[in-house]
Amino acid sequence: MTQQFDSIRAIFWKEDGLYLLDQRKLPQIYEELYLDDARDVADAIRDMVVRGAPAIGITAAFGVVTSAKQHQQLPLSQRKQKILEDIKLLSESRPTAVNLFWALERMTQCLQAPLVNDENLFQLLLEEAQKIHDEDIKANYKMGEYGAALLQSNTAAVLTHCNAGALATGGYGTALGVIRSAYQQNKISEVFADETRPWLQGARLTAWEFVQEGIPVTILCEGAAASLLSQKKVSWIIVGSDRIAANGDVANKIGTYSLAILAKHHNIKFMVVAPTSTVDMKTLKGSEIPIEQRDDSEVFGCGQQRVATDGAYAWNPAFDVTPAELIDVIVTEKGIVENPTLEKMQFLMSS
Amino acid sequence: MTQQFDSIRAIFWKEDGLYLLDQRKLPQIYEELYLDDARDVADAIRDMVVRGAPAIGITAAFGVVTSAKQHQQLPLSQRKQKILEDIKLLSESRPTAVNLFWALERMTQCLQAPLVNDENLFQLLLEEAQKIHDEDIKANYKMGEYGAALLQSNTAAVLTHCNAGALATGGYGTALGVIRSAYQQNKISEVFADETRPWLQGARLTAWEFVQEGIPVTILCEGAAASLLSQKKVSWIIVGSDRIAANGDVANKIGTYSLAILAKHHNIKFMVVAPTSTVDMKTLKGSEIPIEQRDDSEVFGCGQQRVATDGAYAWNPAFDVTPAELIDVIVTEKGIVENPTLEKMQFLMSS
Repeated sequence: MTQQFDSIRAIFWKEDGLYLLDQRKLPQIYEELYLDDARDVADAIRDMVVRGAPAIGITAAFGVVTSAKQHQQLPLSQRKQKILEDIKLLSESRPTAVNLFWALERMTQCLQAPLVNDENLFQLLLEEAQKIHDEDIKANYKMGEYGAALLQSNTAAVLTHCNAGALATGGYGTALGVIRSAYQQNKISEVFADETRPWLQGARLTAWEFVQEGIPVTILCEGAAASLLSQKKVSWIIVGSDRIAANGDVANKIGTYSLAILAKHHNIKFMVVAPTSTVDMKTLKGSEIPIEQRDDSEVFGCGQQRVATDGAYAWNPAFDVTPAELIDVIVTEKGIVENPTLEKMQFLMSS
Repeated sequence: MTQQFDSIRAIFWKEDGLYLLDQRKLPQIYEELYLDDARDVADAIRDMVVRGAPAIGITAAFGVVTSAKQHQQLPLSQRKQKILEDIKLLSESRPTAVNLFWALERMTQCLQAPLVNDENLFQLLLEEAQKIHDEDIKANYKMGEYGAALLQSNTAAVLTHCNAGALATGGYGTALGVIRSAYQQNKISEVFADETRPWLQGARLTAWEFVQEGIPVTILCEGAAASLLSQKKVSWIIVGSDRIAANGDVANKIGTYSLAILAKHHNIKFMVVAPTSTVDMKTLKGSEIPIEQRDDSEVFGCGQQRVATDGAYAWNPAFDVTPAELIDVIVTEKGIVENPTLEKMQFLMSS
């Protein structure tokens, strides 16, 4: 069994409401934001106070709880109406990560359950959000176990992209959960982390998570990944996902598709780690996944500093799609899918 | 004929000495540094006041002239000795760009020519450095012509990496010279520029050069290049080089090798543009090219700002090597080499 890992929590509900660790400011500033308005929760998701597909889903679920708390004084039917409006608002915060819609759908079903009454509404929604959170953490430990089992005992080094860690999930992480488990099993001794421009989730968040635990982590610019892979030190690339289509195509942080092509060229294994809440069987293939375009300023600057010239344009897609044929294995809490296809994904999701 | 392009000059010798446009501060600050000590010239190359293989060669040549000026009062033999010491110092400033050694070799031969005497030494060295500079500009216009001729009339968009422009050369540019020529011929309507971490030559310098001339330029992060190529808007990737080995392997800014693999995967053409002063027939293959490792701080930060976590390591190779088999064409001022091999490179260099 994997040892319990509890040191980093991005999202937590206390008696008075929702707290988010402000990931825009990490690692230089560790600051928790208290949110008591569902609109503020939607803004926090949009502005990337919290990011990472599972973490977005969990946060949105607690956003619904926040709404229930806000409107506690209203009669039940009006209150439900207000909460449904806030659910719509939360659903519009970001388009790509399907966990957002998945979590809001669970919260909607909870809201509309027949046993809901004036007294228990808030408590039922809070319990459902906490359940979503707890299930995600459990799923991460399960994926950590399944994914680490795929690594050879002498894997030595792995490369990851963006942050699919404790900060991006309920806790422990998807891709980083696998790496944590493999490190505990002495299967790997070193992690390489793409810095992940423009938002630098790798340099700021992934490296920070590993430094907390004493796992040696080396940051590189995306442009250096091909050189690194050509040196044959890295035997697996391990990433998370924001949405997996029915055929096994994977949307993830911009730059992931590039790594998958480089992995194939260098005969290096490519693993995607995501809970089944990230699988969207209603989206048949990757090209149907909506890709969020974020503001030019993220590319023009670095943190608060302007670096680019004036007068240029920017192209800033937040995600890309890696076709299933470039993926060696998808790891979920329900099991693994090697060389994913529609049939294999259908089998996984129906099991 | 290509119209003369003279608006951007990174290196110029005036009556009193050498001036360099400080490329570390562009585009926010336009500042020229005056240098009257060869050691300061070596430091300026090392610290990237000036960068780009041909520009480094030209700067080093003027560095030798600076040395001759400094030691003007010494007797001839002592003066030559001092200049040779400064040539050694200049040669140690950066290891990868072969133009540095090529230019210093030319200056050494000039210094040691039989007709050199007490009176004409400075003037002969100055004329040789100016000749190196002028030849480079002429070569760029020639390459612009040859390279642009390879582009289809409806190329529409090209992608470039780092800065192989007027700033990286004597003027006009290698890769950017081709793009300038093709734009003047209405063959392309749009340029995509990788921002090129960690030093952001694309966002800061390439985009700045094109904005000066009203050529539409769009900056993207390296991680987004694969997505861009999958959209089939870009039909050529055009880059410069810091050293070309005898077999056609190409060292260039870190990230180039990645682009070459992505180009092959998407069936997009890959062009390298460099003067023959960049070709090193004494280096048989790319793996023999020394790759400069630069300071971790470049990866940990962005401009003056620290962005990465403390406690992590960094891996910061400044260049990578693209094998000849991934290159569709090398464009030089002596002509083009399609699908480069040792035999073809030997033929080019002996022509």
